[in-house]
Amino acid sequence: MITAARGSTLTARNWQTEAALRMFHNNLDPDVAERPDDLVVYGGTGKAARDWPSFHAITRELTGLSEDETLLVQSGRPVGVMRTHEWAPRVLIANSNLVGDWATWPEFRRLEAQGLTMYGQMTAGSWIYIGTQGILQGTYETFAAIAAKRFGGTLRGTLTLTAGLGGMGGAQPLAVTMNGGVALVVEVDPDRARRRVETRYLDELATDLDAAVARVERAKREGEALSVGVIGNAAEVLPELLRRGVDVDIVTDQTSAHDPLAYLPRGVELGDWSDYAATKPDEFTDRSRESMAEHVEAMLGFLDGGAEVFDYGNSLRGEAKLGGCERAFDFPGFVPAYIRPLFCEGKGPFRWAALSGDPADIAATDRAILELFPENESLARWISLAGERVAFQGLPARICWLGYGERHLAGVRFNEMVASGELSAPVVIGRDHLDCGSVASPYRETEAMADGSDAIADWPLLNAMVNTASGATWVSIHHGGGVGIGRSIHAGQVTVADGTALAGQKIERVLTNDPGMGVIRHVDAGYPEAASVARERGVAVPMDR
Amino acid sequence: MITAARGSTLTARNWQTEAALRMFHNNLDPDVAERPDDLVVYGGTGKAARDWPSFHAITRELTGLSEDETLLVQSGRPVGVMRTHEWAPRVLIANSNLVGDWATWPEFRRLEAQGLTMYGQMTAGSWIYIGTQGILQGTYETFAAIAAKRFGGTLRGTLTLTAGLGGMGGAQPLAVTMNGGVALVVEVDPDRARRRVETRYLDELATDLDAAVARVERAKREGEALSVGVIGNAAEVLPELLRRGVDVDIVTDQTSAHDPLAYLPRGVELGDWSDYAATKPDEFTDRSRESMAEHVEAMLGFLDGGAEVFDYGNSLRGEAKLGGCERAFDFPGFVPAYIRPLFCEGKGPFRWAALSGDPADIAATDRAILELFPENESLARWISLAGERVAFQGLPARICWLGYGERHLAGVRFNEMVASGELSAPVVIGRDHLDCGSVASPYRETEAMADGSDAIADWPLLNAMVNTASGATWVSIHHGGGVGIGRSIHAGQVTVADGTALAGQKIERVLTNDPGMGVIRHVDAGYPEAASVARERGVAVPMDR
Ligand SMILES: NC(=O)c1ccc[n+]([C@@H]2O[C@H](COP(=O)([O-])OP(=O)(O)OC[C@H]3O[C@@H](n4cnc5c(N)ncnc54)[C@H](O)[C@@H]3O)[C@@H](O)[C@H]2O)c1
Ligand SMILES: NC(=O)c1ccc[n+]([C@@H]2O[C@H](COP(=O)([O-])OP(=O)(O)OC[C@H]3O[C@@H](n4cnc5c(N)ncnc54)[C@H](O)[C@@H]3O)[C@@H](O)[C@H]2O)c1
Repeated sequence: MITAARGSTLTARNWQTEAALRMFHNNLDPDVAERPDDLVVYGGTGKAARDWPSFHAITRELTGLSEDETLLVQSGRPVGVMRTHEWAPRVLIANSNLVGDWATWPEFRRLEAQGLTMYGQMTAGSWIYIGTQGILQGTYETFAAIAAKRFGGTLRGTLTLTAGLGGMGGAQPLAVTMNGGVALVVEVDPDRARRRVETRYLDELATDLDAAVARVERAKREGEALSVGVIGNAAEVLPELLRRGVDVDIVTDQTSAHDPLAYLPRGVELGDWSDYAATKPDEFTDRSRESMAEHVEAMLGFLDGGAEVFDYGNSLRGEAKLGGCERAFDFPGFVPAYIRPLFCEGKGPFRWAALSGDPADIAATDRAILELFPENESLARWISLAGERVAFQGLPARICWLGYGERHLAGVRFNEMVASGELSAPVVIGRDHLDCGSVASPYRETEAMADGSDAIADWPLLNAMVNTASGATWVSIHHGGGVGIGRSIHAGQVTVADGTALAGQKIERVLTNDPGMGVIRHVDAGYPEAASVARERGVAVPMDR
Repeated sequence: MITAARGSTLTARNWQTEAALRMFHNNLDPDVAERPDDLVVYGGTGKAARDWPSFHAITRELTGLSEDETLLVQSGRPVGVMRTHEWAPRVLIANSNLVGDWATWPEFRRLEAQGLTMYGQMTAGSWIYIGTQGILQGTYETFAAIAAKRFGGTLRGTLTLTAGLGGMGGAQPLAVTMNGGVALVVEVDPDRARRRVETRYLDELATDLDAAVARVERAKREGEALSVGVIGNAAEVLPELLRRGVDVDIVTDQTSAHDPLAYLPRGVELGDWSDYAATKPDEFTDRSRESMAEHVEAMLGFLDGGAEVFDYGNSLRGEAKLGGCERAFDFPGFVPAYIRPLFCEGKGPFRWAALSGDPADIAATDRAILELFPENESLARWISLAGERVAFQGLPARICWLGYGERHLAGVRFNEMVASGELSAPVVIGRDHLDCGSVASPYRETEAMADGSDAIADWPLLNAMVNTASGATWVSIHHGGGVGIGRSIHAGQVTVADGTALAGQKIERVLTNDPGMGVIRHVDAGYPEAASVARERGVAVPMDR
């Protein structure tokens, strides 16, 4: 069983490598990872290391690495150590990348079976997954945006229907109840559902569909905030709920649809899943796509009935289309629908983790955030809700969406707190790959860009290079996260606040340039909001001078 | 008309940005570029900047950029300037990158027509093209390898048949005659052919096919080294030569087959080419693929007759296969056939250019190379042949293949020569993207890898990141160079030797780590030659400790 070291004593040679080591191990902590024995962290088969020999070699290399060396990781396997310099990242990571014509699931799986690659998802292979909280604020903000758009600012008295209670999907019920609404969540695997109850993301698990429906209808009527899980296959339960005419207000989904082998087709037993998928991947894929088509048909039924329906970034529409559902793209993805205006300000899922392991350190950073941005009410609401309701998994961590001009203030402040002893050990500051300027993903982050540049993938590569050039501690470039192989390219960065003056300079550069990529990406695509942000906050845009 | 500034006076604020500026302009010098008015440098439509406004903005930004700022270039358009630090690259470039499912020529062209991207080829969009010499040594080494393998060490008395006299293809006749052989080169565009005669890459141009055949057959008989060009379409001329039973020993091709719109189909007039391709790209593509299939059928005929036949890295086999030629992949690509053993040693097309514009600076570096590696005979032969026979284009430059443990010695020496005044101004040191550890390209550089990892694209991304982290002056990541959209991902780096101690350190790091990527990439793929190089020269390989 792997857990990250805690406390303020180094096990590696410096805090930069200690940080990478602790976060790498933290990703595989049984409280954090979905299937740590298989090195799987979250999101289908998103892994932290290719195999156990690679795990041990990475651990050994990080333990011995000096302040001017850099470890290279190729799809979860350590392949080199090179002498660089003290401003350089300590780890450079490239996961799951394939040349375009070969960027398909079957080819990926063929190479994976030969031990040549692994699926890195987003924060799994880049060592900054922090458990379900990681997606919680994004989900909370998304539902808050829907509440604002359609329901007068609150989800009170509304019913949200969704599926998937995995590592990310598990955030949905809590995000709905934090917005005052009722959630009904379909999950095929009882263990997953129980885990969400244990970690307080899900309020209760119904014994069957009738009970679930009765419970959520009453809560909706009474304006109670409540989340109910029900065991079943989404491809069966959603059509059934549509037939019954249940009055649903919002429909989405977070099963692992990005990987057809990680979505259970109708009529397949839970116990047969892994064997069947492993032995007959093509047949399984056909069947899961067919089921996704039926699943999406039901969502379209709710759409036609007036519900707010959206794809929550798992490629469900794309796979359903391949399964024969012509109208799959009739409802939008969540980014163009609710998130893009935030991206134009350089906002995205900023996060940090306390390497001490001490929740008091996060409490101190929470207070610091409130002091830094006193005028930001929704941020204040989130920070206090999170303090009350979020159970930490592994190293204590916090997420909140901050924009250009804000992130570096928080980072520099945290670094000062480490220096002054207000925090008991260094913290790492990173983000999801799902950020404003770090992804090309035409079914999700870059869906329906104003200028049609959805598929242009230069941006995440520039993002990785500029973070490498700005002093990030580790930087990663991944392929296929979120929406699956062939459908996305994205980059991540994590920077250590160890209290030194050098770390302060690096943090200032990285946390300016990284969200700066989001601003310039959206300026370039023609978003006037982004152009104003650039002008007002001083982001240099050569073609606009 | 654009030419790079010469001499030792700065036009920008420091030598790092001056170097980028001069090399950017040099790429568009009419003596260097194939179609400078369209910003096209070489290789079909490989461009240095997206459009003229971008050209002017890049020029302006580079002129004003400070020593701790970095310019970001997205497919030939400047999109940002960010504050970094003095070890960071001054320019970061990402060209032509698309998400996998969208990585096709039609989608690329649709986006290009909207002004959203450009084709960067390899050294066009990364500002280190040095004219036809750039490919000359690689081609020379390739033919030398064939001579060694099949013809007792010389091409004397052999006939090589090939096509394409463009920016790269123009190197073929000279490379053959430098190896003592006879070359017959088919080119459809008389202007291109004449240009090669003017620059002394091609000895003569025949009036018609009969004259050409008579001339090369006599030269072959008499053991004369001679290159003859003939105007015609390869898809017609090669089948005709096969029918006539001309005794050809070696067959290859370097038309722009990677881009079906840049290969002229049989039966289309030269004058109609660009209009036809622009107005009916799909029909044109079908026809050019059909022609390539006939072209390759003829090559297979020569193969069956016992000739040495290989694909010279232009995707001709891939396109011919799409055009219906089933056996297209019956002959190998040149990398697995001749070049991979060099890659295992970290060898590749190392090159440098004299920013002074003074040929004497290159002569001095030539002498330095001979002094540094006195035991390397083939290198000595190349350097003296190049000194005699290579006409400089634009800024004087030199190319030679050096490996791990050699490149940094040359770079550090050049930097000392700048410091001491032996050179009259700084030099830039770079390479082609076609290098040992910087490309994923299953039809070319990574064809038939020992472990089947041809399509794994993590390596070029790690290469770009580690160069960014080692002190390179500009770094680029491109998609689709050489073999076309969807078929490759590759990275480039250029580092300035300005005579400072800091530049010396950067050069030492970059020119160790960059070829080091080639060594570890081939160790990881299971090449024992690479494993020996790593052991003997001290390249750290974590999984082998
Ligand atoms: N929107 C975002 O911001 C975002 C972020 C990260 C990941 N994602 C995507 O969300 C999806 C879920 O991620 P995750 O980490 O929760 O994955 P996960 O693999 O941990 O969980 C998926 C869950 O879906 C369940 N499931 C599979 N098929 C089902 C079916 N037919 N009916 C009901 N339940 C079924 C599984 O049992 C599992 O519990 C992935 O596709 C991921 O790529 C979205
Ligand atoms: N092997 C290598 O190391 C290497 C390096 C760089 C580029 N390349 C590839 O080599 C190819 C040539 O590159 P380039 O820079 O010379 O390109 P280019 O566009 O400058 O020249 C191509 C030439 O082919 C001619 N041509 C086109 N169709 C023809 C036909 N049917 N018959 C006869 N001639 C025809 C054109 O007129 C042109 O002169 C490209 O595909 C490029 O990607 C290979």
